[in-house]
Amino acid sequence: MTTEVVKTHIVVAQNASGRNMNVPIYRMQGSRPGPTVYIQSSIHGAEVQGNVVIYQLIQRLKKMDVCGEIILVPNCNPIGTNIKAGEYTLGRFDPVNGTNWNRGYFFDEEAVKRFARTVTPEESIDGVKKRFRSHLLNAINKKLAEPWGLGLAQQLNLKLQQMAVNADFVLDLHNGPVSTRHVYIPEYAKESAALFNIPHCIFIPNVFAGALDEATFCPWWTLQQQVKKNLGRQVSFGVEAFTLEMGSQEVINFKEGNIDATSIVSYLNAKGALHSCDVTPDNMLRIGVYLRDYKTLFTDWGGMVEYLAKPGSPIKQGDAMAQILNIDDLDNENGSRTLEAPCDLIPILHFPSASVLSGTQLYKVFTNYETLTE
Amino acid sequence: MTTEVVKTHIVVAQNASGRNMNVPIYRMQGSRPGPTVYIQSSIHGAEVQGNVVIYQLIQRLKKMDVCGEIILVPNCNPIGTNIKAGEYTLGRFDPVNGTNWNRGYFFDEEAVKRFARTVTPEESIDGVKKRFRSHLLNAINKKLAEPWGLGLAQQLNLKLQQMAVNADFVLDLHNGPVSTRHVYIPEYAKESAALFNIPHCIFIPNVFAGALDEATFCPWWTLQQQVKKNLGRQVSFGVEAFTLEMGSQEVINFKEGNIDATSIVSYLNAKGALHSCDVTPDNMLRIGVYLRDYKTLFTDWGGMVEYLAKPGSPIKQGDAMAQILNIDDLDNENGSRTLEAPCDLIPILHFPSASVLSGTQLYKVFTNYETLTE
Amino acid sequence: MTTEVVKTHIVVAQNASGRNMNVPIYRMQGSRPGPTVYIQSSIHGAEVQGNVVIYQLIQRLKKMDVCGEIILVPNCNPIGTNIKAGEYTLGRFDPVNGTNWNRGYFFDEEAVKRFARTVTPEESIDGVKKRFRSHLLNAINKKLAEPWGLGLAQQLNLKLQQMAVNADFVLDLHNGPVSTRHVYIPEYAKESAALFNIPHCIFIPNVFAGALDEATFCPWWTLQQQVKKNLGRQVSFGVEAFTLEMGSQEVINFKEGNIDATSIVSYLNAKGALHSCDVTPDNMLRIGVYLRDYKTLFTDWGGMVEYLAKPGSPIKQGDAMAQILNIDDLDNENGSRTLEAPCDLIPILHFPSASVLSGTQLYKVFTNYETLTE
Amino acid sequence: MTTEVVKTHIVVAQNASGRNMNVPIYRMQGSRPGPTVYIQSSIHGAEVQGNVVIYQLIQRLKKMDVCGEIILVPNCNPIGTNIKAGEYTLGRFDPVNGTNWNRGYFFDEEAVKRFARTVTPEESIDGVKKRFRSHLLNAINKKLAEPWGLGLAQQLNLKLQQMAVNADFVLDLHNGPVSTRHVYIPEYAKESAALFNIPHCIFIPNVFAGALDEATFCPWWTLQQQVKKNLGRQVSFGVEAFTLEMGSQEVINFKEGNIDATSIVSYLNAKGALHSCDVTPDNMLRIGVYLRDYKTLFTDWGGMVEYLAKPGSPIKQGDAMAQILNIDDLDNENGSRTLEAPCDLIPILHFPSASVLSGTQLYKVFTNYETLTE
Repeated sequence: MTTEVVKTHIVVAQNASGRNMNVPIYRMQGSRPGPTVYIQSSIHGAEVQGNVVIYQLIQRLKKMDVCGEIILVPNCNPIGTNIKAGEYTLGRFDPVNGTNWNRGYFFDEEAVKRFARTVTPEESIDGVKKRFRSHLLNAINKKLAEPWGLGLAQQLNLKLQQMAVNADFVLDLHNGPVSTRHVYIPEYAKESAALFNIPHCIFIPNVFAGALDEATFCPWWTLQQQVKKNLGRQVSFGVEAFTLEMGSQEVINFKEGNIDATSIVSYLNAKGALHSCDVTPDNMLRIGVYLRDYKTLFTDWGGMVEYLAKPGSPIKQGDAMAQILNIDDLDNENGSRTLEAPCDLIPILHFPSASVLSGTQLYKVFTNYETLTE
Repeated sequence: MTTEVVKTHIVVAQNASGRNMNVPIYRMQGSRPGPTVYIQSSIHGAEVQGNVVIYQLIQRLKKMDVCGEIILVPNCNPIGTNIKAGEYTLGRFDPVNGTNWNRGYFFDEEAVKRFARTVTPEESIDGVKKRFRSHLLNAINKKLAEPWGLGLAQQLNLKLQQMAVNADFVLDLHNGPVSTRHVYIPEYAKESAALFNIPHCIFIPNVFAGALDEATFCPWWTLQQQVKKNLGRQVSFGVEAFTLEMGSQEVINFKEGNIDATSIVSYLNAKGALHSCDVTPDNMLRIGVYLRDYKTLFTDWGGMVEYLAKPGSPIKQGDAMAQILNIDDLDNENGSRTLEAPCDLIPILHFPSASVLSGTQLYKVFTNYETLTE
Repeated sequence: MTTEVVKTHIVVAQNASGRNMNVPIYRMQGSRPGPTVYIQSSIHGAEVQGNVVIYQLIQRLKKMDVCGEIILVPNCNPIGTNIKAGEYTLGRFDPVNGTNWNRGYFFDEEAVKRFARTVTPEESIDGVKKRFRSHLLNAINKKLAEPWGLGLAQQLNLKLQQMAVNADFVLDLHNGPVSTRHVYIPEYAKESAALFNIPHCIFIPNVFAGALDEATFCPWWTLQQQVKKNLGRQVSFGVEAFTLEMGSQEVINFKEGNIDATSIVSYLNAKGALHSCDVTPDNMLRIGVYLRDYKTLFTDWGGMVEYLAKPGSPIKQGDAMAQILNIDDLDNENGSRTLEAPCDLIPILHFPSASVLSGTQLYKVFTNYETLTE
Repeated sequence: MTTEVVKTHIVVAQNASGRNMNVPIYRMQGSRPGPTVYIQSSIHGAEVQGNVVIYQLIQRLKKMDVCGEIILVPNCNPIGTNIKAGEYTLGRFDPVNGTNWNRGYFFDEEAVKRFARTVTPEESIDGVKKRFRSHLLNAINKKLAEPWGLGLAQQLNLKLQQMAVNADFVLDLHNGPVSTRHVYIPEYAKESAALFNIPHCIFIPNVFAGALDEATFCPWWTLQQQVKKNLGRQVSFGVEAFTLEMGSQEVINFKEGNIDATSIVSYLNAKGALHSCDVTPDNMLRIGVYLRDYKTLFTDWGGMVEYLAKPGSPIKQGDAMAQILNIDDLDNENGSRTLEAPCDLIPILHFPSASVLSGTQLYKVFTNYETLTE
């Protein structure tokens, strides 16, 4: 049994030469019913490993029996991918104005609350889902048609969200700077942590900060809460969205991409997107943390840094995290000093350059973390 | 009568060479009592005209009789000033992460509400002001001492805000890209529009988006509203804060700087910061608009643009705003096309480059504007 | 009588998304014999006015009776056009490695000398030209086929030079930073200065530094000199190449583009590329300088600058060129100082930002200039 | 026995805030006579490991008995160190104009030839060296005093060269992008390859392209050749200069820095700069190549790349060098393809980003290399 891949392109921007910038869309429509899945990669231009993951996924999925539909959008930001500054890719933000490419998705909390008031005690879950999807899509379309226009990042985000909004499961593939694999999971979908083969899990609350995962789950989570509040009715729409951080930026690796693809296949299989597929999650150590305990360690000094603490390896309070070189004191005892861990922690990622100004995000770390049990 | 200028420096950042980046502070302490004034310039590195305005102000003020204290901080962002990308200054945001240099000031609405509940019906305005200033400064100091640290832009902002928080009048000097002079005024201080010689005035609501003017007036405005709500007591603290946009970025002009200095002297004089000064505001046309009517016109195409509509000159609906060149159709009638004004408007600023991608802020314009009467 | 415009596209690069970057080519083949003309614009991405000039040229030429062939390539650098760094275009060099986009054209002096030795006393000029063109094209093709590959700028340059190498007249349209109109002219074609309506003319020697004009005329000039040296035969091949600087970068202006088009039409007409065309050069003041007298004034200080000397307006030794603001001395007599002209000069262009580091090209100026007589 | 370290600072530039940018100079003057050694690091801002090497060197040397003088200048480019573009350091070129920071040193071949004619058959080597040093320093000083000024990179280079010109041994510490350790050696000093513990050696001819090592050895090499040519006198001045590439950019590592310091100590010891020091070069495999066989492999396509060939590991013709992902063909057999080695080679360095445009320096490799015997 195989599933056909249909490829189209959509235009997401136009460059200064007046040329359309388009993005490939790979769609796999299964012969059986099932959920809709939306997976994109590289909204941040330097975070390229997700493109390989999608490649490996397509290679695998086309030999499988897909249920429902899987939509895959690699390299979804053709502007961010192609802004070089020196040898690296200036991919996190619009070089014109600094706008993060992953902060312009749509969510209108008040509109969701108004919608919630239209839900009746007897309306079926499927009926609500269908109506709400239509409501969300209309809202996105209306936003995109804003008569005075929108910024580039927001236009791009909304054009992608037009596709993602119909999905039951949304995976946004990212990378950290120098990073171990980790995943952002909405608190209500905490159980899904065990469905991926990703060792580090961050549970995030129902707060919208502009990213695709939040823009996907916040409406459904809010609707769920409102329906409960309004009607006392406990509903679950089963929509889930995740940001998966597949290692370090600026690097692709085909073998690791295949391992990552397995991780995603195991999630999709558990969610009913694949028929007679025997891929299941690994039996492995998974560590979880609430977002409030996922800390960023900023410098209050500038200098040059060796990163001693390695992403993924737990360290104890007082252990050396970094060794700092002080250019003006190479002849005395201040030439080098050690930065110690302020508490027990797991480094998840660190800054990718040895040269840091004051106010640099040196490390992001898990504190107060716990082992997840299945 | 003259006033002495005392110059000091404060360190606001450290670079990757481990060197302190400092900022000059010019203080003029009058012999008479009076308000505290805080004026800074160039938080956005390419917006340099304010530095000349401060120069001209100092030249003028040192020959005057200052009441209270005037604190002037030119070139307040030594990082943003010195990031070149090509011949221009990449001054609006931190090149590492895209953070706007003017969005990290401090305001905690809930803390203000809590403070408001400590105000009694009989406490004097001066007493409240003194206590509230102390509260705000403590909060900023506490934020700066955050054990995991803060980002560079926020550190810089808070170090400046430590000085600004004590002021009655705060002026933050900016420039637009290619721009006519305009000023942002909190709605409650609408009358102050007539105290500057600035033709275009934007009235902004009590909403915090991170800028210094908002960070300065939002606490006082909120406190005022809460005290009224809690106690039914109508109070006015007389604190005002403005963002002044002194023309176009990347340019300095000493003559215009002197004219701008006159405008500020007339405001300071009206506010009691100068003794026996006869500088008064010009009798001139001033046009005002509410922030909701200050529109940004984005492109939904990319191409090359001649900006026909000039900042400051009103145009009618349907008038030509821009002429667009289409590189791929130079041999036919689509080679060039005209963009028309969607309504009557005054262009205030436009993008500084002929080359635009889709999603570019082409123009910012006044719509539904009105002439201000004194 | 009209001339048809035939539009094609050639691929000059591929971006990181794997997409072809192409360039439009407009060709006008006259019904009568005549010279081949090659005109390109925007090899430096921020220098966009030439695109409008080509637009206006096409509008004009298609109503004329072209002799020979005119090839027009607007926006010839699709990479450089689309690299934004802040609001401006980082168009002068490859952002990956700093390579100037206008320094990778081909010229091999030794190969020309070897070719010269194949010219016989009796070979016709046309015969030599034809053989030499073929030799040059082969050399460019061979360079492009270099088995280990070539850098991006060089690949782009050579693909353009494949077209330009066949032309008798090559015009490369550029802009200065903030600049008056000026033109680079090979010394041997000094008389052609009077055929353009451009007030400032720079005469350059037979030295190759990588630009298209040099890459075009150096081979012919060298061949001419070698033939004279080898055979004592005085030959002139009539090939000319110019870099035209059409005002300031980052700006387009349709009206000025039309004036510039007239200037080029008058040159083309004088060179026999147009039949029964009555456009002739203006009777105007033209000023010339040898390249050695076209001086760059660098700063040996950093600071903020008002450019007092305006491009195109002659000033005397000791006249004020710039006013410099010194941030750390705003309270004393060092707060501002004047930079004086070191000799009589005409400023041709100045740096486009008020903020300069030490070692900045503040002005480029004509010294020891002379009025050209026709 | 110890040697004292004397620290001073020199100003090499001024930023747009008008502030001096200085550089630390560490000098160790031995009590015994001996050679003068000059070592600098980080002329390219992202190449920071050399700073750690100098730190480790100072720690080691101050416990040793230095003969002559050792001058160490870490972080010698305070501008390049501090230009961030995204998280990385835009350190290879001046962001204003693209000028490589390592191409503005001084060498005037004609002046050396003129100087050579002043050398007499009987003048002592020491006498010639002293006179020539004085000649070179004068020429550099004169260049720096150029009345119209110089560009920033050239000013910086010449200020450093004022110190380096007096040295017998000059080491310029660099890094490659992702790189194994290698060293550039002038052909005449080929024997010195065995004095460092660096496995890959590139022998370069007497050609000046602007770098410090060339600027140091070209004058002496040229003088040597001219004296031989003019007088038939075989002289050797013993001046050597090297560019040492200490691994990958953007990274510092203290342990490897100590190993690198040992390598340099062994060279200095062999050259008589250290008294009673027992550090000698390792007995190790060293591979050498002539510069003409040190090839750059450019791409003629754009895409995303996994670098399979690892710097330092020899591969055979036809072996896989890279795996390339093609975003638009993820559903078919063109989704990924392999790039094969065009011949037997040792990859020395590769591009540091997976995302490449056409014309990217993918790899630099040794071809036709040979094992060096001691």
